[in-house]
Amino acid sequence: MLAAAMMLLPISMMAQLKSFTLDDLMWGGSNYWNLQPKNIYTAWWGDCLLELKTDEVCVRTDKKGKLTAEPHATLFTLDEVKAAVDETTYGKVHHLLNVSFPDGEATLAFIRTNKCNVLYDWKAKKVAWSQELEKGASLKDFSNAAKAQAYVKNFNLFITDAEGMMHQISTDGSRDLLYGESVHRDEFGIHKGTFWSPKGNKLAFYRMDQSMVTDFPLVDNSTRVATLAPEKYPMAGMTSHVVSVGIYSLKATKTVYLKTGDATNRYFTNIAWSPDETTLYVIEVPRSQDKAELVAYDAETGERKGVLYTETHPRYVEPMNPIVFLPWDNSKFIYQSRRDGYNHFYLFDTTGKELAQLTKGNFEVIDFIGFNTKDKSLIFKANADSPICHNLYSVNVKTQKMLRLDNGQGVHRASLSASGTYLVDSWSAPDTYRCIDLVSTTKPEPQRMQTAPSPWVGYNVPEFSCGTIKAADDSTDLYYRMVKPVNFDPTKKYPTVVYVYGGPHAHNVNGSWNYAARPWEVYMAQKGYLLFIVDNRGSQYRGLAFENCTHRQLGVIEMQDQMRGVDFLKSLPYVDETRLGVHGWSFGGFMTTNLMCSYPDVFKAGVAGGPVIDWSLYEVMYGERYMDTPEENPEGYEGSNLLKKAGNLKGRLQIIVGYNDPTCVLQHSMSFLRAAADAGTQPDYFVYPGQGHNMMGKDMVHLHERITRYFDDFLK
Amino acid sequence: MLAAAMMLLPISMMAQLKSFTLDDLMWGGSNYWNLQPKNIYTAWWGDCLLELKTDEVCVRTDKKGKLTAEPHATLFTLDEVKAAVDETTYGKVHHLLNVSFPDGEATLAFIRTNKCNVLYDWKAKKVAWSQELEKGASLKDFSNAAKAQAYVKNFNLFITDAEGMMHQISTDGSRDLLYGESVHRDEFGIHKGTFWSPKGNKLAFYRMDQSMVTDFPLVDNSTRVATLAPEKYPMAGMTSHVVSVGIYSLKATKTVYLKTGDATNRYFTNIAWSPDETTLYVIEVPRSQDKAELVAYDAETGERKGVLYTETHPRYVEPMNPIVFLPWDNSKFIYQSRRDGYNHFYLFDTTGKELAQLTKGNFEVIDFIGFNTKDKSLIFKANADSPICHNLYSVNVKTQKMLRLDNGQGVHRASLSASGTYLVDSWSAPDTYRCIDLVSTTKPEPQRMQTAPSPWVGYNVPEFSCGTIKAADDSTDLYYRMVKPVNFDPTKKYPTVVYVYGGPHAHNVNGSWNYAARPWEVYMAQKGYLLFIVDNRGSQYRGLAFENCTHRQLGVIEMQDQMRGVDFLKSLPYVDETRLGVHGWSFGGFMTTNLMCSYPDVFKAGVAGGPVIDWSLYEVMYGERYMDTPEENPEGYEGSNLLKKAGNLKGRLQIIVGYNDPTCVLQHSMSFLRAAADAGTQPDYFVYPGQGHNMMGKDMVHLHERITRYFDDFLK
Repeated sequence: MLAAAMMLLPISMMAQLKSFTLDDLMWGGSNYWNLQPKNIYTAWWGDCLLELKTDEVCVRTDKKGKLTAEPHATLFTLDEVKAAVDETTYGKVHHLLNVSFPDGEATLAFIRTNKCNVLYDWKAKKVAWSQELEKGASLKDFSNAAKAQAYVKNFNLFITDAEGMMHQISTDGSRDLLYGESVHRDEFGIHKGTFWSPKGNKLAFYRMDQSMVTDFPLVDNSTRVATLAPEKYPMAGMTSHVVSVGIYSLKATKTVYLKTGDATNRYFTNIAWSPDETTLYVIEVPRSQDKAELVAYDAETGERKGVLYTETHPRYVEPMNPIVFLPWDNSKFIYQSRRDGYNHFYLFDTTGKELAQLTKGNFEVIDFIGFNTKDKSLIFKANADSPICHNLYSVNVKTQKMLRLDNGQGVHRASLSASGTYLVDSWSAPDTYRCIDLVSTTKPEPQRMQTAPSPWVGYNVPEFSCGTIKAADDSTDLYYRMVKPVNFDPTKKYPTVVYVYGGPHAHNVNGSWNYAARPWEVYMAQKGYLLFIVDNRGSQYRGLAFENCTHRQLGVIEMQDQMRGVDFLKSLPYVDETRLGVHGWSFGGFMTTNLMCSYPDVFKAGVAGGPVIDWSLYEVMYGERYMDTPEENPEGYEGSNLLKKAGNLKGRLQIIVGYNDPTCVLQHSMSFLRAAADAGTQPDYFVYPGQGHNMMGKDMVHLHERITRYFDDFLK
Repeated sequence: MLAAAMMLLPISMMAQLKSFTLDDLMWGGSNYWNLQPKNIYTAWWGDCLLELKTDEVCVRTDKKGKLTAEPHATLFTLDEVKAAVDETTYGKVHHLLNVSFPDGEATLAFIRTNKCNVLYDWKAKKVAWSQELEKGASLKDFSNAAKAQAYVKNFNLFITDAEGMMHQISTDGSRDLLYGESVHRDEFGIHKGTFWSPKGNKLAFYRMDQSMVTDFPLVDNSTRVATLAPEKYPMAGMTSHVVSVGIYSLKATKTVYLKTGDATNRYFTNIAWSPDETTLYVIEVPRSQDKAELVAYDAETGERKGVLYTETHPRYVEPMNPIVFLPWDNSKFIYQSRRDGYNHFYLFDTTGKELAQLTKGNFEVIDFIGFNTKDKSLIFKANADSPICHNLYSVNVKTQKMLRLDNGQGVHRASLSASGTYLVDSWSAPDTYRCIDLVSTTKPEPQRMQTAPSPWVGYNVPEFSCGTIKAADDSTDLYYRMVKPVNFDPTKKYPTVVYVYGGPHAHNVNGSWNYAARPWEVYMAQKGYLLFIVDNRGSQYRGLAFENCTHRQLGVIEMQDQMRGVDFLKSLPYVDETRLGVHGWSFGGFMTTNLMCSYPDVFKAGVAGGPVIDWSLYEVMYGERYMDTPEENPEGYEGSNLLKKAGNLKGRLQIIVGYNDPTCVLQHSMSFLRAAADAGTQPDYFVYPGQGHNMMGKDMVHLHERITRYFDDFLK
């Protein structure tokens, strides 16, 4: 009866649906976590799947790899752990959500407190081993094999070994000379500075001399008197840092440095160990970034053994993945390359002989996940079934036969068991918030572990759609997402905001939940805006030519494609072409400012976050890859320099930055404001003191309230 | 006929009157100088008045002090000067507008080129004396008596004497140790760092050790990579600089320093020489600023000879004027004090004996202009006839009889002849843009030299009016100015903007042209706004109690008075009380932000320029005078701290600052933005890179376009 009555509710009652607040939607908002879908935390103990809960660890699979029925068997509980891991001695264990299981045979759980690394034996119900953590240590890197803990303290690199002995690897560390930290500003896939050898006998590490790099004067306004917090920031064309790679031997207690020759203007990337620990592999890139060389070094002496493989490209080569050895054959390794136009796996032997291309086709290998060591295959993520999906695949090394492991829809994330026989697949699709499946990597018949119900039930949710338009070359398909205003009425005309990123290494549209719509788009749709997002050429996962056509002229092709999006919008009867807005952050801030200044009669209002304004103010690694140096490419720098376009501004443009942005420094926006004032145009401006390139925490809510208000003020 | 026809023009044709642009109105605008009234540049040669023109100097008075009839006799021409002052040797003389006449007897004109100081003898038609200027010299201070040039170069102090010999007075000057520069952040009337003795035999100078003062990290964004441009900035309660006073003797070629004892936390102000050069007088103020001591030092030895006079006040004593000796009696001098509640002249002898109070009454002596040495009187500016006028007076030292020298209206500026017998009076009044009179200081019957026609003829000029309201104490009269919208219609309701400064040492309303209306007010009136400006208690020229009632609680009484202004506005039928805005700069920015946050339901929109946000971030000298230290007055600092009120903001508030402001440092606005983001309120913001506390040049136009647009966006 009630159900029948509800079906007869008039439309006006439908409006009783709840509306989202920014505190509901935004990461950092006070109600954000309440509106996230349920999750299961899991870990692998060998090939046995465990579920991690706050207060217990349960067994989820039987020996045949089948999901067990409820109630799941408890492996151990938090109470048991607490009874064994004395809080005073070892520090407090708060929950079991991030316990790991280093050994598939032993009944040992690795637990890290704020005081110790602990191996807890749940069978014996006692601490099997522990190691105190150094206070003030950062960048902790633990070797399971050696039970040794590498860390950085006061700019120097240390190891505490399994017996608790402290090895001081460097003594002259400083702001100018960094040890064990990530280098080359995290480009080339680098995101750490220490690399344990497979058996834990040796630690390779970065050493970066940046004494010759100009300091950018960032200022910390949170102290009693504002203080200088300078950032070593090499700008395009200027003197850069010099990196070397050291190898410390725990046994010999000494360091050798790789004999690379003069390291000036060279990048040392994608460090990898041979399984026998005798050789260290580095992919070396010259500052021009038109070449990548896979170089082998003797790990004992640091001698350069030779170049195994060289790849060149007149635009740029960007190695992002270290080589990986086959677990069943230490003479062979996998190399990832985009040399045929898409990122694929290649099999090499250690003499540098290329044995096979393992994957092939007009799709991108997105992520190497691991090996199935039993049937000798690679497990990986790729977009082979659709350019906007990320699916899971295996490829057999011998037969090169590729097998899809999932449903071929959506965006998937996998966690592989020890032998690679099973994986946990957490995925979403446009109409599916989150599903978690257990999958055999040989017989891919997913066993469903969880279908999270949408936490958005009862809310007035807009319509999300996806499609393609042609790029400005009239042939390339570009994927777009559209978010229609809530209570959409096709006879009305809506103010429309283009959200844009547009740069390399990112994309906005994919086959995940709601086509990856950002929470703010939902908020804007609730406010009566139509949102449109198209991934132009230059963006991610569409192959090399799609990406590198923007080389030496950032912004030009990207804007041409975005304007095709605008043409498409103008063709829609419900888009009010007199009320077009644009918003983006970082490269998207560059795009937004560029679009506002290049098409001043098209866009009425824009909000540009953390924009690049002048590529000569951007850093060496990223900047020179796409633009070369200002000396090599003066026309490109001139053409993309928004200072030259500041005088064109007609619409309302607000630039928003983090005051302490170490990535896209304040000088960008400051220079633009200066240029605009000189040219007599009136951009608006806002800064978040204490924030970096992207806003963190509660400021995300504040920021999006701010962005929304700007469109409410000047577009609605 | 034409005139008659014009009188019959209908109102609609009246609207054909021209409108001002910001380029017309604002200093820095491209048409600003074309809309300024005509001026006459004059100089005194003894008691003979000369008119300075670009290409000639004319004689304007006869020996009896009467204006001569046209054509005026030419004294010398630019061509004659150029013929004698060889460009290659002496540098180029571009015009004669800033020539001076150091000796009333000799036919010598002092001319400064970019290369030399020159005395040109117009009778002999040749260079009588010259002196090359040091390149890179700054803070040039020339002694006419000694023909010696003091200057600062690379932080050190030098003199070039009449014979061209260079005296290096200091050698250890640096950013940390300044010589010959203004000290104590230009408070206490200090605005230079060198003080020639009357006969030019000695130079007193400041030396400031600021090595112990915290650097505020200002950043220059105009360089290839932004660079640090730190400012030594002692904040309230923090360690301040230490100043000493040196005396260099040109004859002895050596320096003595005044033996002041420990100079820590002391201010050395208002340096004055005895006419015989044997004694240097300094008014000394302790850091607490509750005392001023007039101290005499032996100029030969630096010995402290004693305290001549001491003044104390539980709030503060602020000596702003050095003592001045009577030209006809070297044993007596004039001291200015507000000890009876208003600033007045007192006569002392050099033993410290007070002989007489020369002026008295509920008015302020504003400026000492000079002496009439013939009838032994002081010539000065005061507001004795009206609190908002500045008139010229003489007072006889013997009889203390005061005589007004002008018409008793408006605001006057005087230039006195050598003997003080005559003065040139340049003045304006509410309906008079600029008049220039020649006045005898004994028989004040003005001879009109010029009545400048209004350059605003043909423009649609708003109505300016002035009146008083009662302060929040219900008794004190406060003066206001009102600028009505052009084409004012009393039956309409107008958006209304309160312009405010409100702090000490400044006022907004006086009896000059249009009651001192600022050009922007005219622009806003053209845009349809009503402007209202009231000088609250705490502001200038109304006596000590009027000013110092704000002590230890800046903003409190000032806002109470401003809200009386709002009450008055609300009582006017043509003021739209739902559309009230507020704007001010510096202290006025503090007031604007404070009003927006303290009365969030009253003001709909505000623009705060260079605001003080937290007095603990302001400098020691000004800040502690009015607020004491944060330690001494925690409640006062807390109560005036706008960070605590940031969460109250409801209306639209834009804060605008110069990015390189060394006076009210960026930390003020940054802290406010941080506090607002934390509290979830949304101020707007703009910065002018490269600008200081006040905008210079073309940015003034941009700034006022910006301010206007903000009110157009959110108030209109």
